[in-house]
Amino acid sequence: MLEDLETPVLLLDADTLDANCGRMRARMQSHGVALRPHMKTAKNVEVARAALDAPTGSITVSTLREAEYFFDHGFRDILYAVGMVPAKVARVAALNRRGARITAIIDSVEGAQALADAGTREGQRIDALVEIDSDGHRAGVPPEDRALLDIARILGEGLRGVMTHAGDSYNSDTVDRIRQVAVREREAVVASARMLRAAGCASPVVSVGSTPTAVFGESFEGVTEARPGVYMFNDLVMAGLGVCRIEDIALSVLASVIGHQRDKNWVLVDAGWMAMSRDRGTAKQKVDQGFGLVCDAAGQPIEDLIVADANQEHGIVARRDGGTIDFARFPIGSLLRILPNHACATAAQHCEYQVLRGGKVSGTWERFSGW
Amino acid sequence: MLEDLETPVLLLDADTLDANCGRMRARMQSHGVALRPHMKTAKNVEVARAALDAPTGSITVSTLREAEYFFDHGFRDILYAVGMVPAKVARVAALNRRGARITAIIDSVEGAQALADAGTREGQRIDALVEIDSDGHRAGVPPEDRALLDIARILGEGLRGVMTHAGDSYNSDTVDRIRQVAVREREAVVASARMLRAAGCASPVVSVGSTPTAVFGESFEGVTEARPGVYMFNDLVMAGLGVCRIEDIALSVLASVIGHQRDKNWVLVDAGWMAMSRDRGTAKQKVDQGFGLVCDAAGQPIEDLIVADANQEHGIVARRDGGTIDFARFPIGSLLRILPNHACATAAQHCEYQVLRGGKVSGTWERFSGW
Repeated sequence: MLEDLETPVLLLDADTLDANCGRMRARMQSHGVALRPHMKTAKNVEVARAALDAPTGSITVSTLREAEYFFDHGFRDILYAVGMVPAKVARVAALNRRGARITAIIDSVEGAQALADAGTREGQRIDALVEIDSDGHRAGVPPEDRALLDIARILGEGLRGVMTHAGDSYNSDTVDRIRQVAVREREAVVASARMLRAAGCASPVVSVGSTPTAVFGESFEGVTEARPGVYMFNDLVMAGLGVCRIEDIALSVLASVIGHQRDKNWVLVDAGWMAMSRDRGTAKQKVDQGFGLVCDAAGQPIEDLIVADANQEHGIVARRDGGTIDFARFPIGSLLRILPNHACATAAQHCEYQVLRGGKVSGTWERFSGW
Repeated sequence: MLEDLETPVLLLDADTLDANCGRMRARMQSHGVALRPHMKTAKNVEVARAALDAPTGSITVSTLREAEYFFDHGFRDILYAVGMVPAKVARVAALNRRGARITAIIDSVEGAQALADAGTREGQRIDALVEIDSDGHRAGVPPEDRALLDIARILGEGLRGVMTHAGDSYNSDTVDRIRQVAVREREAVVASARMLRAAGCASPVVSVGSTPTAVFGESFEGVTEARPGVYMFNDLVMAGLGVCRIEDIALSVLASVIGHQRDKNWVLVDAGWMAMSRDRGTAKQKVDQGFGLVCDAAGQPIEDLIVADANQEHGIVARRDGGTIDFARFPIGSLLRILPNHACATAAQHCEYQVLRGGKVSGTWERFSGW
């Protein structure tokens, strides 16, 4: 029973998770694109299995701790999708010696040379993709940049292809704009792979990322795999982008009412930013959801109620319009569920998931953090 | 050696910690106020001992997990400074049965009655302070409100006094303003205690909170204890308030350079918001420090370099003025130290502290999270 949980606590609706995962698998299948789900949000093996609909498979990770955890749960083919540095090669090499196939990413000649040298020291070749900067928001070589060929020469057989992350899709204010970002994302990697192949580098992998472009991209021609992650859980930022509906959000924080400020029309709950995270991803969207959208204990949103502000362990619940609260509905100790702005940030504040099936607590799934 | 640590990793300079703790102890002693340090930031027993300069002592906590952890390390007198709900009383009562003296906080007649009823069910009286709302920023009964007397009647001997948290001090833009907040904070609790005493309730405890008011308050007359917390570590928000100097910040994140975007004048590091937190507390201050102020590996700030933006595992380092970066100073794999906006939020992203003494790594201190 929800009432038996100590608040604040992270809830994961496994029925919604399964539906979200099934939709993405079907979509990628219909486009003939392999799904290599990003496990940085979930950091849990049961979620990975739901995403893949299989005991193991190909995944993406953002930390070597994720790589080690999933390897220990039977996963072998793992893309470590954060720029590699020499000091981390020993840990990758150790996993490879145990049977993993870790692929690194590289976006400079200097980085490629350091990876090759570190591989020589470890007595093994570390495979890599070149990161392509498809939208100027983070890392990567510009599409079709000459540096690609220099990197290819250094990595030789170790260069497995190209990847990009369309981070700009998170800032799109219309679905049309997400579609444009998806076009640019695809063209950036496809053209870069073509350049490498013309130079004699096989580049079998052409990899794209991001949930919004995976959901709204119209063509995946030339793309071999996609690495979305947040679609498994969804969140208010995704709902604000039109990527999902509010009812597709699988993750929430169960909180208790701990106080009333009647003259201010505030209900205080025990989910502050420590439970919700400080992520205010909807602040720049059309509808600002504060630190989270407030639902009743069953998960039904309550007439425009949001966590308007947050301290470390206090959430301030108020109506979006500042209107009157019916305090009798929210006695001290009563339960509310809060949908998060950003599933990745909120999940990271918790050590486990309380898993719901058919709306009832059915078990606990672990969750780790750290690097 | 710093070079042997895997980045990103949380560093705690124990020499700076000791100096920060010593200054606060001396200040509180000179005002005749007991120090009940808030352990919500540190969540570690070694830090508590540094704060108290003793193996155990009176502390403040923000979660029952903190209460249990510190009790297991010999601490008995613990103030749980988040509004109490009936469902959490069993856990408090269990600690008390083992020898703890947990004090709860209450800010309504309804909450007081629920606490008294839950205490009756557990067969023990749960002591409490009434929270006073000294600045309208969060929870609490208005100073000298009649509800105080109603709560006192319900709690009887269990009512130990009053407390407040001057959260507004974090928003002050001058030291004078912090001093004004401190006056209001003190007057709110002292007047409320006077009202309770006039009604026959002993109210021995008159407790104030917040690092800025502890540092700048000029009078503590009538106050019996203070509960600052972040002063142990300090952070960029505190430096921006004038509460500490940059060199008094004991906490930092060690990061590796993972890439260069030369045409944008960006250095990419492996400390994104997962390592720094999403806290942007300096955004509303005079100097916006982005996601953190960048220092060399020894902790010396580098000419206006900040983490200008952050993805989950990527930090984008740039000059505050957008100026040119000398990339030769930041080769791939080189180390940087990043000072955090908000120590509470950044520490919460990590599972342990790498402790520095004399600038060298001297050990690892644990850190827990969850509720």
